[in-house]
Amino acid sequence: MGKYKLRCINCGKVYEPDEVEYTCPVCGDRLGTLEVIYDYEDIKVQREEFSKFENIWQFEKILPIEKGSYRTHLHVGGTPLYNMPKMAEELGIEKLTIKYDGTNPTASYKDRASAIAITKAYEKGYDTIYCASTGNAASSLAGLSAPTELKTYIFLPASAPIAKISQLFIYGANVLPIDGTYDEAFDISMEIGKEKGWYCRNSAINPYLLEGKKTGALEIAVQSDWEIPDYVFVSVGDGTVISSFYKGFYDFYKLGLIDKIPKIIGVQAEGAAAVKRVFDKGEPFLPDDIETNTIADSISVGKPRDVVKACKYVKKSGGYFISVSDEEILSAIQELAIKSGIFAEPAGATSYAGLKKIANTLGKNAKVSIVVTGNGLKDVKAIEKFVNLKKIKPDEVREVLKNEN
Amino acid sequence: MGKYKLRCINCGKVYEPDEVEYTCPVCGDRLGTLEVIYDYEDIKVQREEFSKFENIWQFEKILPIEKGSYRTHLHVGGTPLYNMPKMAEELGIEKLTIKYDGTNPTASYKDRASAIAITKAYEKGYDTIYCASTGNAASSLAGLSAPTELKTYIFLPASAPIAKISQLFIYGANVLPIDGTYDEAFDISMEIGKEKGWYCRNSAINPYLLEGKKTGALEIAVQSDWEIPDYVFVSVGDGTVISSFYKGFYDFYKLGLIDKIPKIIGVQAEGAAAVKRVFDKGEPFLPDDIETNTIADSISVGKPRDVVKACKYVKKSGGYFISVSDEEILSAIQELAIKSGIFAEPAGATSYAGLKKIANTLGKNAKVSIVVTGNGLKDVKAIEKFVNLKKIKPDEVREVLKNEN
Repeated sequence: MGKYKLRCINCGKVYEPDEVEYTCPVCGDRLGTLEVIYDYEDIKVQREEFSKFENIWQFEKILPIEKGSYRTHLHVGGTPLYNMPKMAEELGIEKLTIKYDGTNPTASYKDRASAIAITKAYEKGYDTIYCASTGNAASSLAGLSAPTELKTYIFLPASAPIAKISQLFIYGANVLPIDGTYDEAFDISMEIGKEKGWYCRNSAINPYLLEGKKTGALEIAVQSDWEIPDYVFVSVGDGTVISSFYKGFYDFYKLGLIDKIPKIIGVQAEGAAAVKRVFDKGEPFLPDDIETNTIADSISVGKPRDVVKACKYVKKSGGYFISVSDEEILSAIQELAIKSGIFAEPAGATSYAGLKKIANTLGKNAKVSIVVTGNGLKDVKAIEKFVNLKKIKPDEVREVLKNEN
Repeated sequence: MGKYKLRCINCGKVYEPDEVEYTCPVCGDRLGTLEVIYDYEDIKVQREEFSKFENIWQFEKILPIEKGSYRTHLHVGGTPLYNMPKMAEELGIEKLTIKYDGTNPTASYKDRASAIAITKAYEKGYDTIYCASTGNAASSLAGLSAPTELKTYIFLPASAPIAKISQLFIYGANVLPIDGTYDEAFDISMEIGKEKGWYCRNSAINPYLLEGKKTGALEIAVQSDWEIPDYVFVSVGDGTVISSFYKGFYDFYKLGLIDKIPKIIGVQAEGAAAVKRVFDKGEPFLPDDIETNTIADSISVGKPRDVVKACKYVKKSGGYFISVSDEEILSAIQELAIKSGIFAEPAGATSYAGLKKIANTLGKNAKVSIVVTGNGLKDVKAIEKFVNLKKIKPDEVREVLKNEN
């Protein structure tokens, strides 16, 4: 076989990469998202070839890309994994590590997917690429495509945080601020993209995005010195990032580099818990959409596009879904900042909010990783309640501080 | 001798580290900032022990810190150096590399200094640390001290960008938003800090900060595979970051690891060119303060605290100072974003604005590095003129795009 094939998550039909562009023609966009499957016997790979802070291209042998095709020069991945013993002790677990992806080029996890999308656009000969996004996938695509020859169109809700929107314009993307929800922006983007023949960098639809995202899991394995955690907590919107965590560990497992796959725990905002709802109903997993209301804009998704895969993979891992309130997310942002030095955007701190909520059920021997998917600088409005801008004149400072020492 | 001594940049008097806390008692805070000098014969170090993406602690042998004292767990330094051949060609020079420090834990260069300041505070037994800042040093100190036992006080102009102020509050620092300029915040912070006996993390005053900052130069050497650039362009406010670039290359030169020191080119905003003014007047370099007016808040400094050292070091390197207008800075932000994928804050793009301005004077064989000191997400208001938030209803998109393909 070639390096890889594509398999429908719903019907299981296997396609050659050149037979199908995005999703299973039989099952359609919503049910029939595809998995990239490799011939694991054929891939020769050893633990020793990976290092802790190299970018995602160090995993090229297990990525669905051609030798010698375009690679972004930007340093995507190789983000830190912090070991936090004191936080673990406070939570009553054995070990806590935090994968912090806010140091990617455009400051979110989504750069891992955009890097692959751009490589594939070049390999397939497209000259235009587009996406619909709550904000991070958009700024990521805009940033990584800016230095390329590709033309870029971005569909996003006009209500997205101003920092994310500013990134789009400074990178020179063609921006369509949609007067509607992310779910509406997604639907119209799919229509237009098909009509125009542009390459689609939309979550779940494009099967290669998840392969880029899985590098986060691969890095956790490498950076943990191959001591795989028992649980990995991931915030969930469309369901692609969480699926990618299962897939990354699965690939390393199938390659014989690790001997277990962690339980993957999905954490959703209570006001946008569409994937959890489907998971909790049980199999067969079928989309069941909702209206959303949460401050965690990056995971404010009512019509999750990778819901089937997310539910199947989480179940296979032995994991499950939980949800947290906006209040729990906000207090998790501050607590995470103070205890770890990591300033996360709301969706980024959602994984920590989830861990706090159920840590006491995991057992004192539990080794846990949480994934912080985005930098807090992307949405400072979300934390405005913590900020007090009362000005002090220089000659008043001494009085203000008279009781401090 | 011990590992290092302190030497007054003005009178040359040499002190043992325990003889003096901050500046030369004879020459005072403004003229008598100190240099850390090592016994270079005594330090055994080889090129092979350094790697490209490790954090700053890999340079421990040439940092003024004790073995086994506190080290932040956060990944400070190890930031990317991007090689941009196409941009070099367009500028008519042989090579351009960009050191991008927006991926540090709090998204600016200042983390390199704060990391050392916190280590020194612990070594010296302080329980409280403070700084005055235009914003980045503040958010950096707040972020790196948050997970420690240290109490933190921040003096900054209340007009600082909201993202930087938000970082302070989320990290739980004690914030004093001063109704005044950075220079006023600095002066009152020094008075209060002395009265209270807190440890001072103020630019230039604390001689160890520059040693942290010099790790940027050390990384350029390592990441260039020891092929040292001819020129390094650095934006300039107080003068400490630019001094640190000379010092880093100087240390590696004295250790026999490199055979030249690049010409260091300081780039200032026209509305805050206080260091350039002193440099252009010639020796002896004496402070000569101004009022400031620039969008580049991080380098909006009228009373630069490290002006003497900056001028002396830049002169020794064979470099000089230039200035650029706010318009040039703004267009540099967009051009840098589109050509390199790096979104810089105004002070961060100032180095590129400077390079654009004088690239044609450097010669076609020139190898140049520029330093981008901060992430654009720290000040999105600065680029609001590029942003167009006109909303489009989903059913209007097709019409809007009718001429695109």
